[in-house]
Amino acid sequence: MTRWALLLEYDGAGFVGWQRQAVGVAIQAVVEDAAAHLAGAPVTAIVAGRTDAGVHALGQVAHLDLARAITGEKLVSALNFHMRPHRVSVLRAASVAPDWSARFTAVGRDYRYVLLTRRGRPALEEGRVWHLPHGVDAARMAEGARHLLGRHDFTSFRAASCQANSPWRTLDRLDVVRRGDCVEILASARSFLHHQVRNMVGTLKLVGEGRWAPEAMAAALAARHRSKAGPTAPPEGLFLTGVRYPQDVFGGAGGRVQLDAIG
Amino acid sequence: MTRWALLLEYDGAGFVGWQRQAVGVAIQAVVEDAAAHLAGAPVTAIVAGRTDAGVHALGQVAHLDLARAITGEKLVSALNFHMRPHRVSVLRAASVAPDWSARFTAVGRDYRYVLLTRRGRPALEEGRVWHLPHGVDAARMAEGARHLLGRHDFTSFRAASCQANSPWRTLDRLDVVRRGDCVEILASARSFLHHQVRNMVGTLKLVGEGRWAPEAMAAALAARHRSKAGPTAPPEGLFLTGVRYPQDVFGGAGGRVQLDAIG
Repeated sequence: MTRWALLLEYDGAGFVGWQRQAVGVAIQAVVEDAAAHLAGAPVTAIVAGRTDAGVHALGQVAHLDLARAITGEKLVSALNFHMRPHRVSVLRAASVAPDWSARFTAVGRDYRYVLLTRRGRPALEEGRVWHLPHGVDAARMAEGARHLLGRHDFTSFRAASCQANSPWRTLDRLDVVRRGDCVEILASARSFLHHQVRNMVGTLKLVGEGRWAPEAMAAALAARHRSKAGPTAPPEGLFLTGVRYPQDVFGGAGGRVQLDAIG
Repeated sequence: MTRWALLLEYDGAGFVGWQRQAVGVAIQAVVEDAAAHLAGAPVTAIVAGRTDAGVHALGQVAHLDLARAITGEKLVSALNFHMRPHRVSVLRAASVAPDWSARFTAVGRDYRYVLLTRRGRPALEEGRVWHLPHGVDAARMAEGARHLLGRHDFTSFRAASCQANSPWRTLDRLDVVRRGDCVEILASARSFLHHQVRNMVGTLKLVGEGRWAPEAMAAALAARHRSKAGPTAPPEGLFLTGVRYPQDVFGGAGGRVQLDAIG
């Protein structure tokens, strides 16, 4: 038995999210079914970040066990072959120790959320941005974001459905940067609560629109009640950009695309 | 009658290109039909760059004449409303002089071609890159590209269907730059021949793969015969990024999205 770590990219549109559901296509099912083709038996894939329906990934990481002897390069090709035409791609495969876990060995998750702040609707990036035609003040959002950094009880930013034992998380990064017509929000933590990034973004939007003072972020956090923070941002602007481990698994920068397709 | 300049973005997938054809949906038809809704009469749109089927635009420019009094802001909203659900968006509208032409007043066209040079197929950028899983040497391509700069007879890089009177063009820029897993080719000229950018890219790919010496680009150019250059690169990696005019029409950077959605 060999344990394989897989670096995955996917377009979240059209999927019910990572995890299998009663109805709809799950990314987990696409990956597991492709692996089962190779194994000739069912395979279970464990993932670092269970992304919701519509959320994209540039650097998702999963692991699975295969008895069959195969090189990493051939595993990438074979999985990609069987996953067609789904918009899921294996970028790298690396053999890891039998006790290595994509989920539990991970020490950091990095997300990016993209706002498009121009009047015209997105023709090319539809489904990959949150379109805010009236714009936002990114500097004001950055000021608001600083109040969330560090170790806190994030109950106000946690989905009712969240299954984590504790609402305490340490937010290492929450940058808000303007890039032309876009505003990007970059969030890093060891782990996040369910909907935490989208709830932080939905609340920061209120600050960016001038409806909330930047300091209101601190008050929302201190309230420890979901009703005291803003609404959940839509899933399509969210990208899981990478997962960090104590030892580099995939060699160098991983397979993350450094693509500036438009701009 | 007011002449309006329109700044357009579109996803070329699913269109037969800018120009109306016997079969299929043309971007021109989407824009003209939306304008006809407002005008209550047929409207003709003239474009700066007649892009082919599958080619995208971030900063296409067209003009059309409307008798109806309307502000630029309302024109943008109304056209975008009528163009739904097509992936075409008007980013700006500006009133211009009656003799101003999107096509003939233009003094420069800028294109970008994106190669994805990693093993794994693109899940997110499918249809927006040319996937070259075996990679290319970008520095070698840049060396080859230099041989095409300046004023030349570009017959070797011209489609048989090209209707231009002269095969002479002045290529002002042909940069090849690596950005992570991508290689971008940036081409600028007053105007291009039909398929010129895609034929230059298809030939530079041979250089990047080591199959042609960089100097072979000069020989291909000098041969003045289409058969002496390489094949035509596929349309989906090509983006019309902008059109330049003697006077700035749309104010500042125009509506071009500066988005780095993945990377």
